[in-house]
Amino acid sequence: MIEYDAAPPEVRAVYDDIMATRGVDWINNFWKALAHDPATLARIWDQVKTVMAPGGALDPVVKEMVYVAVSATNGCDYCIASHTAAAKKAGMDDAMLGELMAVVGLANQTNALATGLRVPVDPPFEATAFGRRPAEPTK
Amino acid sequence: MIEYDAAPPEVRAVYDDIMATRGVDWINNFWKALAHDPATLARIWDQVKTVMAPGGALDPVVKEMVYVAVSATNGCDYCIASHTAAAKKAGMDDAMLGELMAVVGLANQTNALATGLRVPVDPPFEATAFGRRPAEPTK
Amino acid sequence: MIEYDAAPPEVRAVYDDIMATRGVDWINNFWKALAHDPATLARIWDQVKTVMAPGGALDPVVKEMVYVAVSATNGCDYCIASHTAAAKKAGMDDAMLGELMAVVGLANQTNALATGLRVPVDPPFEATAFGRRPAEPTK
Amino acid sequence: MIEYDAAPPEVRAVYDDIMATRGVDWINNFWKALAHDPATLARIWDQVKTVMAPGGALDPVVKEMVYVAVSATNGCDYCIASHTAAAKKAGMDDAMLGELMAVVGLANQTNALATGLRVPVDPPFEATAFGRRPAEPTK
Amino acid sequence: MIEYDAAPPEVRAVYDDIMATRGVDWINNFWKALAHDPATLARIWDQVKTVMAPGGALDPVVKEMVYVAVSATNGCDYCIASHTAAAKKAGMDDAMLGELMAVVGLANQTNALATGLRVPVDPPFEATAFGRRPAEPTK
Amino acid sequence: MIEYDAAPPEVRAVYDDIMATRGVDWINNFWKALAHDPATLARIWDQVKTVMAPGGALDPVVKEMVYVAVSATNGCDYCIASHTAAAKKAGMDDAMLGELMAVVGLANQTNALATGLRVPVDPPFEATAFGRRPAEPTK
Repeated sequence: MIEYDAAPPEVRAVYDDIMATRGVDWINNFWKALAHDPATLARIWDQVKTVMAPGGALDPVVKEMVYVAVSATNGCDYCIASHTAAAKKAGMDDAMLGELMAVVGLANQTNALATGLRVPVDPPFEATAFGRRPAEPTK
Repeated sequence: MIEYDAAPPEVRAVYDDIMATRGVDWINNFWKALAHDPATLARIWDQVKTVMAPGGALDPVVKEMVYVAVSATNGCDYCIASHTAAAKKAGMDDAMLGELMAVVGLANQTNALATGLRVPVDPPFEATAFGRRPAEPTK
Repeated sequence: MIEYDAAPPEVRAVYDDIMATRGVDWINNFWKALAHDPATLARIWDQVKTVMAPGGALDPVVKEMVYVAVSATNGCDYCIASHTAAAKKAGMDDAMLGELMAVVGLANQTNALATGLRVPVDPPFEATAFGRRPAEPTK
Repeated sequence: MIEYDAAPPEVRAVYDDIMATRGVDWINNFWKALAHDPATLARIWDQVKTVMAPGGALDPVVKEMVYVAVSATNGCDYCIASHTAAAKKAGMDDAMLGELMAVVGLANQTNALATGLRVPVDPPFEATAFGRRPAEPTK
Repeated sequence: MIEYDAAPPEVRAVYDDIMATRGVDWINNFWKALAHDPATLARIWDQVKTVMAPGGALDPVVKEMVYVAVSATNGCDYCIASHTAAAKKAGMDDAMLGELMAVVGLANQTNALATGLRVPVDPPFEATAFGRRPAEPTK
Repeated sequence: MIEYDAAPPEVRAVYDDIMATRGVDWINNFWKALAHDPATLARIWDQVKTVMAPGGALDPVVKEMVYVAVSATNGCDYCIASHTAAAKKAGMDDAMLGELMAVVGLANQTNALATGLRVPVDPPFEATAFGRRPAEPTK
């Protein structure tokens, strides 16, 4: 991992932008690990900065909770910890975390059931979700 | 899959509750596939009804979007279609779907990077997220 | 996919062994797809034949149900269908399938919860499971 | 994590039921981590108690081994340890564990092969597994 | 999915760049599906164009094979098909595909075994891989 | 885990072959954990020895990088560490590792997007990749 003081100028520029954007005075390990490949560091940071920025269609706390949901499903310990922390900073309280984990657990359960039983998609869902194949529901 | 007309009474009771709770007049395939095991049908429906109910700490559309995020990560086609449809019914517009998928894609990318580089969790994230091991950040 | 009649001798030998071992008179698509690489075909078949053979510590129907559980978790449609069929041939009835899927669904749910909440392993479990680190339980 | 002595009455009631049902005198970390959300704690415990209860179509040791198979596939360390321990208590010896892991490893291998080669499901498997689309096998 | 003729100018500009960069005269469905969110379309294409460009440290056919390996592991049918096609165009012959799938299958198998048995990382691997914790090997 | 000195003859024979094949004088933990089941130990080693051997269609460093890509996607810490170490020994330098991780991250991102949006496979990809269903591309 590359510390700030040992970083070349193009890495230091990304580190400075991370700290300025987030209003923090330290760099977390994820970026230090990526910094061996400055082009990837800059590209990933640019994406995170853009996608997670406030002012879009979703509230920042919702985006952080979605991030936690994906990370828990994939089993990425680093991302679970960093984005649970970020969600808490963005306003997620204990009741919200409890409901979030309840949905994540339930979704993983029904995903396995629907997949394991090879349930065919109902045409009305397909039509509503993706605008395809309108069809009559069967009761 | 067990259709309504062929269903035994305890299955029909669950089907009736699903339709009444959701205000629809048909049963989707997921429940028909589970109905071979009435105890599991009742138990899964009870969970879905409880966890996804309105009136909690999270807005229903947020819960449906989290469901989509998990289902996309797991690759459950049925669940992607049914919960994208549900999220749209609950108010997710195209801009929200676009941001949701942007976060889901990004989270899957950084999950793989943090895992593949075996990045150690920063103690401040651990402390904020789970109330463990407070520690000094290192710049 | 390579059909029997078009197969070179080393592929045909594997096909013959598959049919003889299983007491069937046709080759399923999985093997036909592998047959482009005869060495891999032979190696994978040798493993399947050995691991799934009757006479070991686990009953064949248990091994097929474990196969279904893994395949449902990974979302492999081909493997779900072929091993659900094999489990049924080996004696899995509808009640057993219902319980199997109930366990698979539940395990996927609690996996996501334990991972998402970063729950530390209790030392007594570690000791019982892997013979490591005996420790006092804390109530 | 919420310890027994610090738990509110509705959490303590679940803890007491867990200890009575399992015949143990301590609470493992999974439940202590869930206890921040007493409704989820009660709901998950109710499911575990029901699904994993003895007296069903599957032997308890089979259910625990299926749990281990799913947990190993998902990479949930906590669940691997806790359910390997539970399987051992339920009668899984070293030979059974060895065969279990051999099946789990093999299933993960062939899952990736069938998925990666996009092998189409043979109609006879579909028909046997799910009662759909009977079709002639092709040799 | 948004077809070329119906696309707004900023989408058409990305479509044109995709066709020019790849030397093809049609747009594949992935980009048409992303085009509902032009900002995400542009951001993802920019990444693909940069990461998969020739002239880096890895040969283009190696990068496409790595893409196939990840997609087979995740079970993304679209990505398996599109990147197997791309790998073949970049020079992957049948022998290379056979070996690729053999490695992918084997890795998925040993991943499940190492995870399921909770094998601790040997310090020499850690040191060689990530420059951490040099330690004496134990025979 | 079974150390060399405590190993029965059939385990010791595998250990000796591992050390001779790899030119090392110690056994890593993966094999020691498998050694409780000598038949599985021998079968897995035989596969690794065969599949990862030099002299095939793919360069050894490419095979090790594919192994890392799969292991990062599955989140197998042991396999990430051992195969990143092996890839470095086989010639992977920092620039190659940087590009490898960039492809792995990108593939995980676009996998989630293509799956989450349920993008249908373009017939020309299908035809090029698997020799099926040739069809006209649509611009």
